[in-house]
Amino acid sequence: MSKHKINAIVGQSGGPTSSINSSLVGLILGLCGSVDKIFGMLNGISGLVANNIVDLTGLGKDSYGLSLLRDTPGAFLGSCRMRLPDDLDSVIYKQIFERIEQNGIKYFFYIGGNDSMDTVAKLSAYAKKKSLDVSIIGIPKTVDNDLVMTDHTPGYGSCAKYIGATVCELWQDVASYDLASVTILEVMGRDTGWLGCACALPMMRFGYGCSLVYLPECSFSKERFLSDVEKALGKGKPIMVGVCEGISASESFLGFDAFGHRALAGIGKELENSVRENLRCKTRSIELNLPQRCASHFSSLTDLLESEEIGKASAMFALEGKSGKMSAFVRRDGEYGVDITCVDAYLVANKTKYVPKDFINSEGNFVTDKCERYLSPLILGEKTIQLQNGLPRHFKLR
Amino acid sequence: MSKHKINAIVGQSGGPTSSINSSLVGLILGLCGSVDKIFGMLNGISGLVANNIVDLTGLGKDSYGLSLLRDTPGAFLGSCRMRLPDDLDSVIYKQIFERIEQNGIKYFFYIGGNDSMDTVAKLSAYAKKKSLDVSIIGIPKTVDNDLVMTDHTPGYGSCAKYIGATVCELWQDVASYDLASVTILEVMGRDTGWLGCACALPMMRFGYGCSLVYLPECSFSKERFLSDVEKALGKGKPIMVGVCEGISASESFLGFDAFGHRALAGIGKELENSVRENLRCKTRSIELNLPQRCASHFSSLTDLLESEEIGKASAMFALEGKSGKMSAFVRRDGEYGVDITCVDAYLVANKTKYVPKDFINSEGNFVTDKCERYLSPLILGEKTIQLQNGLPRHFKLR
Repeated sequence: MSKHKINAIVGQSGGPTSSINSSLVGLILGLCGSVDKIFGMLNGISGLVANNIVDLTGLGKDSYGLSLLRDTPGAFLGSCRMRLPDDLDSVIYKQIFERIEQNGIKYFFYIGGNDSMDTVAKLSAYAKKKSLDVSIIGIPKTVDNDLVMTDHTPGYGSCAKYIGATVCELWQDVASYDLASVTILEVMGRDTGWLGCACALPMMRFGYGCSLVYLPECSFSKERFLSDVEKALGKGKPIMVGVCEGISASESFLGFDAFGHRALAGIGKELENSVRENLRCKTRSIELNLPQRCASHFSSLTDLLESEEIGKASAMFALEGKSGKMSAFVRRDGEYGVDITCVDAYLVANKTKYVPKDFINSEGNFVTDKCERYLSPLILGEKTIQLQNGLPRHFKLR
Repeated sequence: MSKHKINAIVGQSGGPTSSINSSLVGLILGLCGSVDKIFGMLNGISGLVANNIVDLTGLGKDSYGLSLLRDTPGAFLGSCRMRLPDDLDSVIYKQIFERIEQNGIKYFFYIGGNDSMDTVAKLSAYAKKKSLDVSIIGIPKTVDNDLVMTDHTPGYGSCAKYIGATVCELWQDVASYDLASVTILEVMGRDTGWLGCACALPMMRFGYGCSLVYLPECSFSKERFLSDVEKALGKGKPIMVGVCEGISASESFLGFDAFGHRALAGIGKELENSVRENLRCKTRSIELNLPQRCASHFSSLTDLLESEEIGKASAMFALEGKSGKMSAFVRRDGEYGVDITCVDAYLVANKTKYVPKDFINSEGNFVTDKCERYLSPLILGEKTIQLQNGLPRHFKLR
């Protein structure tokens, strides 16, 4: 391939979201006309090393393809979980930049979470060290909303909306029975409780749904949990409880099976068993599992549009010659809106943004109005997806 | 209450669906103008015995309320799981018909599954025996689609559509990773595999999704299952497998924990552990749990409209003086459509409609084209639900 051409390449990494491909769409649209070729690395940086890349240039003018891609969950280019070594003298950097040179790449984009920002920081450090003229830009993405230096992350709003809506619907189901019962909803969030906050929205809005919510930011006591549940059950009616998967990662808390293996079921199932044994009432746990991060049939339109905008803005930042940066949202004062800026990727890499203390009540079992004000605008709006005979249509490259 | 008035009463029973309230809407609209009052019994027949009833007459002219009710999952009037005794001389029948007389009821409707049709059959037998002029009509409802004498049941299409769409979306997520992996999706169906069939739709339509599907109608062998999975994994790519919760209820199959308690996790988790131990690849199980039956944000419009129509038709059957009947769908030949007829409730009560043999392949691990032709029209169409700031709005009586 000619080195005289100016090309771009993009990869996706980490856990997918409903809106990760909207950022890809925005990026492609933002690059169109300013570069010769737009390549996609398949399965992230490991695909680039293997020179496993596809040409996405034609997609820029395929408005139907782009519209299907916006509706498609999962990482369209494939994902990976590869971590680059700290030592910039490692051979892998040489291999990566050989591929970059071979393919005439001047602009390099990586869509992902804090591990991906680590990749962006390291690659840009390497390029700087070797005086290579490649702009390396990170585009944030994670349902976990745990990246620092951005108001929120693309992907979070859609997942939060799905969780909120599911709580509303589950409430109608569990409240159909006139008896005391406990329904425990387990959502994602190993280290942070951002998705747990979404469980609380229906109660704050409509007065039903989860009346108790437990986040990893608060130390968890099973005794206090059981006491909270017992108190809430006092009214003899169904209650719902939201828990994040990571509320207790201590092995002393999780059960072990007969072989001494750590119990493979999640915290929701563990707490379900505790409630049943201790409080002797009808108990159920529901793990929302992968559907919460791929339910593109009910995404937040706000999230989808913002995800696309941050993709576009990232193209602009690269074209301006910025490198080693992550695009980020800054929330405007007053009526909701975001501006897109860019921040140093190394400041984001490997860091975690926790739910702040003033978003959580003093008992550590629910969220505050301030949390609701933060979260509410992120779930606004719906998108009509494309369907074929009743099922969603998704985009395939081949 | 005056006995000169002609009133109707309706109850809901059994597990809720996304469309059970559409049947209630249709019934109310069908009765409006032909009766003085329309009552709802709260929590089914047990609510009637306790005279726990509400007046729904005004709803008939509340078009906004009715439109919200159509979007509301769960049993709006509350559900119960009460089974009437076989002996018609039991005191409960006298109690029920006293309530019926007190409230001037001439038309009695019960929306539910085969247990509810048992209630309809028994109450109409009692009324006939005592020469009481009360029309008792059953309106079918179950996501399980296991009622005989009807082409399909209201509620099934919406649940099947949700499952099909979720398989499509999950596929995009799991296929993001370039490695052999197994994702097991557990859907409802203790005795019958109708919802398992829905897992197969994306593969038949789009060539991706679950490539293996196991239904309770086929005897299940874990060895054969593991061999099927191993074979499918041969290509080194992700695979998805659909299983119904009831594929093996034998205790020898399900695991026991260290205390000899039956493992509380479902068949999906059990099979996940088996695959991981035996085939040593990345494995995950996802139990769709209650969201599959209450996800009214993604119902089948066909199901919703048919559910409302069967409610209306049931009003008509009662007004014509029929009793002891269940309304039922008869599929038309040629282009898809249904006629609504009525059948003897006692012929439906306590019976189970299984997935027919010619809907299942000879290996017992997938469905046939005939199954797809049966199921496809039932998931057609979507409904735009009413939302408030990004979350679904549901109807409350009070």
